[in-house]
Amino acid sequence: MRKIFEITASDSRSSARTGNIHTPHGLIETPAFAPVGSQGAVKGLSHSLLQGLGAQLMLVNSYHLFLRPGLETINQMGGLHSFISWDKPILSDSGGFQIYSLSPLVKVKKKGVEFTSHLDGTKIFLSPEDVVDIQIKLCSDIIMTLDHFLPFPASKEKMKEAVSLTSLWAKRSKAHFSQKDSSQLLWGITQGSVHWDLRKKSTEDLLDSDFSGYALGGLGLGEPKSQLMEIIEKSDSLLPKEKPRYLMGIGYISDILEAVERGIDLFDCVLPTRNARNGTLFTSKGKMVIKNLKYALDERPVDEDCSCYTCQNFSRAYLRHLYERQEISSAILNTIHNLYFYLDIFRKIRQSIQSNSYHRLKSIIINKEEEI
Amino acid sequence: MRKIFEITASDSRSSARTGNIHTPHGLIETPAFAPVGSQGAVKGLSHSLLQGLGAQLMLVNSYHLFLRPGLETINQMGGLHSFISWDKPILSDSGGFQIYSLSPLVKVKKKGVEFTSHLDGTKIFLSPEDVVDIQIKLCSDIIMTLDHFLPFPASKEKMKEAVSLTSLWAKRSKAHFSQKDSSQLLWGITQGSVHWDLRKKSTEDLLDSDFSGYALGGLGLGEPKSQLMEIIEKSDSLLPKEKPRYLMGIGYISDILEAVERGIDLFDCVLPTRNARNGTLFTSKGKMVIKNLKYALDERPVDEDCSCYTCQNFSRAYLRHLYERQEISSAILNTIHNLYFYLDIFRKIRQSIQSNSYHRLKSIIINKEEEI
Repeated sequence: MRKIFEITASDSRSSARTGNIHTPHGLIETPAFAPVGSQGAVKGLSHSLLQGLGAQLMLVNSYHLFLRPGLETINQMGGLHSFISWDKPILSDSGGFQIYSLSPLVKVKKKGVEFTSHLDGTKIFLSPEDVVDIQIKLCSDIIMTLDHFLPFPASKEKMKEAVSLTSLWAKRSKAHFSQKDSSQLLWGITQGSVHWDLRKKSTEDLLDSDFSGYALGGLGLGEPKSQLMEIIEKSDSLLPKEKPRYLMGIGYISDILEAVERGIDLFDCVLPTRNARNGTLFTSKGKMVIKNLKYALDERPVDEDCSCYTCQNFSRAYLRHLYERQEISSAILNTIHNLYFYLDIFRKIRQSIQSNSYHRLKSIIINKEEEI
Repeated sequence: MRKIFEITASDSRSSARTGNIHTPHGLIETPAFAPVGSQGAVKGLSHSLLQGLGAQLMLVNSYHLFLRPGLETINQMGGLHSFISWDKPILSDSGGFQIYSLSPLVKVKKKGVEFTSHLDGTKIFLSPEDVVDIQIKLCSDIIMTLDHFLPFPASKEKMKEAVSLTSLWAKRSKAHFSQKDSSQLLWGITQGSVHWDLRKKSTEDLLDSDFSGYALGGLGLGEPKSQLMEIIEKSDSLLPKEKPRYLMGIGYISDILEAVERGIDLFDCVLPTRNARNGTLFTSKGKMVIKNLKYALDERPVDEDCSCYTCQNFSRAYLRHLYERQEISSAILNTIHNLYFYLDIFRKIRQSIQSNSYHRLKSIIINKEEEI
């Protein structure tokens, strides 16, 4: 059986580790950050700019792509990699989050989800098996099971039901996937919010199905940080070391650093790209709101310690001007910086774990998310 | 005295020629196309992408930059090249066109133009001398005189007055500029629409002031092509061969090819960049409206004969998808293609003139602007 994940180094003081995820489209060195390209493109970049920043994979959204351009189109174009001309790994989100958050009318049944398209109101039913099939047709490298996602806070009663349904669907997803002769990786998603008894149950249920990777879903929704970290830490001790773990949708650098220490290998978040478009830039000294008047005559780069194209070439004053004029170049240059900043931190995370100095790196970086 | 323009080859069958314009920031090989970056950035590109396409210069807009971020900012940032981090030649439009077309209230007086800012209604007065001073402060390489621009069609009576005022202002601009010790190039703009007697008068008046280049303004506004070409042709015979000629704002490839044959050396137009954002792509076979349903499953590149990044990597189907989803990448990839297409035609124009085969190139390219 082919090796899907191997650990290449482990931190002596924590659960942090580096590893390689082997996918049909190549290796992902972990801890890794997946830039979000919901529609098959990271907003504000070309693929070549994205690769130049060191992106190892792209996250796409099954829900969006299923609705438009639709599976038939992507299938006829030879799968998603071919359709979007991206030959590195693709992780497709199952679309659960989007169904529950974008659709105006959702009915969750045991057999699956009935919802109306947020675009034209079309009624759609998707079973967990359908969601696997959609992602098999997309040919994404890492595919996610359909879960039952609840907003935060939800009653424990409801969360218990959500966990139960998520477990059932995960089992059915795995059974369905196993019948297919696919080299794609199917990962399960645990739910249960910050209730450890529920999260534990969810995790144990999923472990029964033996997925090739495990994601922690339904977090980063406003729950206290301490509870978030507690859940990650306890999940770490329950999950097998030899399987990659993915913390979905969480993007604050401080949270990422804490989560890496608790054994998380993969992250995704719109934070660096969305904030870039909104003019919020991440720097080694804290967050910078580029429209601020104090940057109008500031000749310095966004981050004097940054080697990205934007920082190597442009001043804060020019970036402020572009943002204020709503120039597309503002989105491009800001996105280049923010994503470079993120991917560079992940490079440093991997290096520091390999040289057993992760603790030092974390203490240098953390607490730098204030506005400067 | 330093050489500002030299002719490097001349077509034996027409007035087409290649040349070099020497500017403080380097050479512009002509015939040349200036991509429009009104606010100091070409919409949809980074400077590095723009240079990769072979852009030799950028056109910026004095009116916009004068209003925001303002001269003081640009001056304190070390001039426009430094502010926008662009070290190649910059041509600044005088802003006349924008004053007349964007300002809600314009009063043209002998001493200058009084107008209200289209942004906040501030009343502003600019004399032709002020407009020279603004562009001197911008440190642009080629600066344009303030002209009196009228919409098309205008009565001949009014156009006569506009020409008269344009001549007066041009003379004053030159006198004012001559007192400055600037290595920038000041070019005059002729007016007179398609009335040859007026255009002739305008041209002769400007020749008295001996500008280092001459622009034909107030054209491409809907006048019949035959009259447009007649004006360019007659201007060609009146203007000194040894001075570069600039046809302002005209961007259809067929018009450009006709104009090159009539001795025009420099062009600018928003057409390739604006059309790119609107999903209209130029190809060697004609115009392509990428949102068209017929491209939904089209695996071919936009133009099979094109070597640009977009055509080398992406299908019409993907570009249609990005356009339909209003992804920023759509603007980026489309702009890369359209500008490459334009700049590549200019490379071919220069090569063909140098190999005395311009006539053949023109006949191959022309009549390819239909929608395909």
